[in-house]
Amino acid sequence: MSEVYVIGAGETKFGELWDRSLRELAVEAGLKAIEDAGIYSRDIGILYGSNSLGAGISYQNDVGSLIADFAGIAVEHTPAVRVEASTASGGAAVREAYLAIKSGEYDVAVVGGVEKLTEVYGSEILDLTSTLLDSEWEAFFGATPAALAAMTARRYLDDFHVSREIMAMISVNDHSNASLNPDAQYRNKLTVQGVLDSVSVAEPLTMMDCSPLSDGAAAVVLASEEFMKKMKIEGVRIVSSEISQDYLALHSRKSVYEFESAKIASRKALEKAGIKNDDISFVELHDSFSIYGLIELEDLGFAEKGNAKSLVENNEIRLDGSIPVNPSGGLKAKGNPYGATGVGQFVEAYLQFKNRADKRQIKDVRYGMLHSMAGSGSTSVVHILGGE
Amino acid sequence: MSEVYVIGAGETKFGELWDRSLRELAVEAGLKAIEDAGIYSRDIGILYGSNSLGAGISYQNDVGSLIADFAGIAVEHTPAVRVEASTASGGAAVREAYLAIKSGEYDVAVVGGVEKLTEVYGSEILDLTSTLLDSEWEAFFGATPAALAAMTARRYLDDFHVSREIMAMISVNDHSNASLNPDAQYRNKLTVQGVLDSVSVAEPLTMMDCSPLSDGAAAVVLASEEFMKKMKIEGVRIVSSEISQDYLALHSRKSVYEFESAKIASRKALEKAGIKNDDISFVELHDSFSIYGLIELEDLGFAEKGNAKSLVENNEIRLDGSIPVNPSGGLKAKGNPYGATGVGQFVEAYLQFKNRADKRQIKDVRYGMLHSMAGSGSTSVVHILGGE
Repeated sequence: MSEVYVIGAGETKFGELWDRSLRELAVEAGLKAIEDAGIYSRDIGILYGSNSLGAGISYQNDVGSLIADFAGIAVEHTPAVRVEASTASGGAAVREAYLAIKSGEYDVAVVGGVEKLTEVYGSEILDLTSTLLDSEWEAFFGATPAALAAMTARRYLDDFHVSREIMAMISVNDHSNASLNPDAQYRNKLTVQGVLDSVSVAEPLTMMDCSPLSDGAAAVVLASEEFMKKMKIEGVRIVSSEISQDYLALHSRKSVYEFESAKIASRKALEKAGIKNDDISFVELHDSFSIYGLIELEDLGFAEKGNAKSLVENNEIRLDGSIPVNPSGGLKAKGNPYGATGVGQFVEAYLQFKNRADKRQIKDVRYGMLHSMAGSGSTSVVHILGGE
Repeated sequence: MSEVYVIGAGETKFGELWDRSLRELAVEAGLKAIEDAGIYSRDIGILYGSNSLGAGISYQNDVGSLIADFAGIAVEHTPAVRVEASTASGGAAVREAYLAIKSGEYDVAVVGGVEKLTEVYGSEILDLTSTLLDSEWEAFFGATPAALAAMTARRYLDDFHVSREIMAMISVNDHSNASLNPDAQYRNKLTVQGVLDSVSVAEPLTMMDCSPLSDGAAAVVLASEEFMKKMKIEGVRIVSSEISQDYLALHSRKSVYEFESAKIASRKALEKAGIKNDDISFVELHDSFSIYGLIELEDLGFAEKGNAKSLVENNEIRLDGSIPVNPSGGLKAKGNPYGATGVGQFVEAYLQFKNRADKRQIKDVRYGMLHSMAGSGSTSVVHILGGE
């Protein structure tokens, strides 16, 4: 089996991009990634489109075909398929591209993730984001992603005696890093008090505990080792790519604050890479809500259950800490355009490995872990990059 | 690379299944396929869910997770991903499963296709099916799948001097075969006059030229050769799996009645199998509209452009003809539950190869070709099965 490398990456700015359409965003990111890789469109074997809510928001299904069409690569008859795994669509699409190259059928695969969430508002967007939950057994009864996260937060904070302030620091850290990322949606710094004083969304979560509604696109070019060497490109190796699953409905899980999917996928990814959590130089995790940042730090193996607080308290999650979290700014501050979010993690990782992350550059990067998660944890995709 | 086999298949009846939900349909088909394969759920490495309009119709995204949850395989943490490529979702999902096994990462993959189209009606379902077109450049201006097919039909019938009656015979053939298929939505026989006298949908297409709105699910179990031999199962080999692409918007294509994606995918699939069209014992093609049946017979290589009529006139497309078309009953009569349609083609093929197709059994089956197509031809997935 060929090894698989990231050989190019690009993204749009994340934000409220009123004047840009789904197709425009996707193609901007895709072209940036292709240019960055220094390949031609005819080199592309297959395109994976990652998008979650385009059908509901922009009346557009078949987003893979849309991107292939507007990017002009349909003229080469490059196949295009859309992968959807809720908010883990990005990570899942990269994994499909990884498998496609591993299969020996393709040398080069492009993954384009795109989402346009600001086209609708109010109860309509709330209904649409709730299609990511179990519609009959959760959303129908009024559950929303934020409501489920809030229930999880209450229980977690209480059971593990974690202060409200510690949870807020996940958002503070995201904003601090995002202030150094020109592609981020929110570049303002945030204080713990600022999080606490913000509008309540679902107690105990305030607006500053919740990732925003974002528009944006991100793309990566993956290639086989053979292709990369032939083209004399230096890529970043995908050391492992793992995916795992839990029940879709939160009420069926063993525990509301253990993401089994994240545990299993990360454990397998570390095993395959033959490394330990200590070897990871940074982690991009899926903190769609600040509480998830704490829980994932634990389930990805960086802390014991209930003890992520000590990493936060001791500033270990900062850019200069022992395990920098979300150097990109994370879902809270870089933004959360669902289909693009997991692909955007690859863009950040690629820049870090290429020493192109400017003021948020982490020193001596060896391995990076990327965690893309669906909704409240039904699917987790974990990638480990680096290692050479 | 391991060879990939279909080792089990199952489906629900296709039809207007008012009393069954998306999850119930998916799990019924999945369990049938798993039972048919004689494996345990713990043997499953990965699940691919195929669904097209669930988000719009049933307010349910992340259908992969939904199926894994309700089937109870989430307890094994079996990963689940949804593949969407418009009405080609089924074929595309099987291809992803094929690649996953080829990659060496999985021994067994299940593909579950499901769709529930009868939950909404009138202009709402029309708007939803139009999300499969280019929303900004086609649907926005009033185009619907049937309208585009009608324009194509007018041009085709005129340019190639094909009679309206010949086109109707595609539907007549589907109904004739479906009358022998207990899973089919419509088991009544149809006459050419009956097609012509039916209600007009978009001239020259009548209701009997158009595939119906269907509910239904279909599932197949794919396995590596190693697994199959270890389990002493006799599967049906997937000799080739190919996918190709054209512009999403019909107006960007070279010709309105040439499906380049079908041409390229089928040519590649035949090449890889090392066979010619004459070696194909039956074809399941994507005749969402009768006109597409004629066009696809040509673009899949069974007739020269404009000459599919001679196959139809000479009854070559019947079960006892030289190239039986849609022994299952096809999209018109077996039904067209989008995400399940392409997977259902595998169910039919599997039954044919296993000599389990009862009264519609084709004699001496050597190779079968399956063609799953998105909308008006943006994506084509072609599989060839058999060969031993």
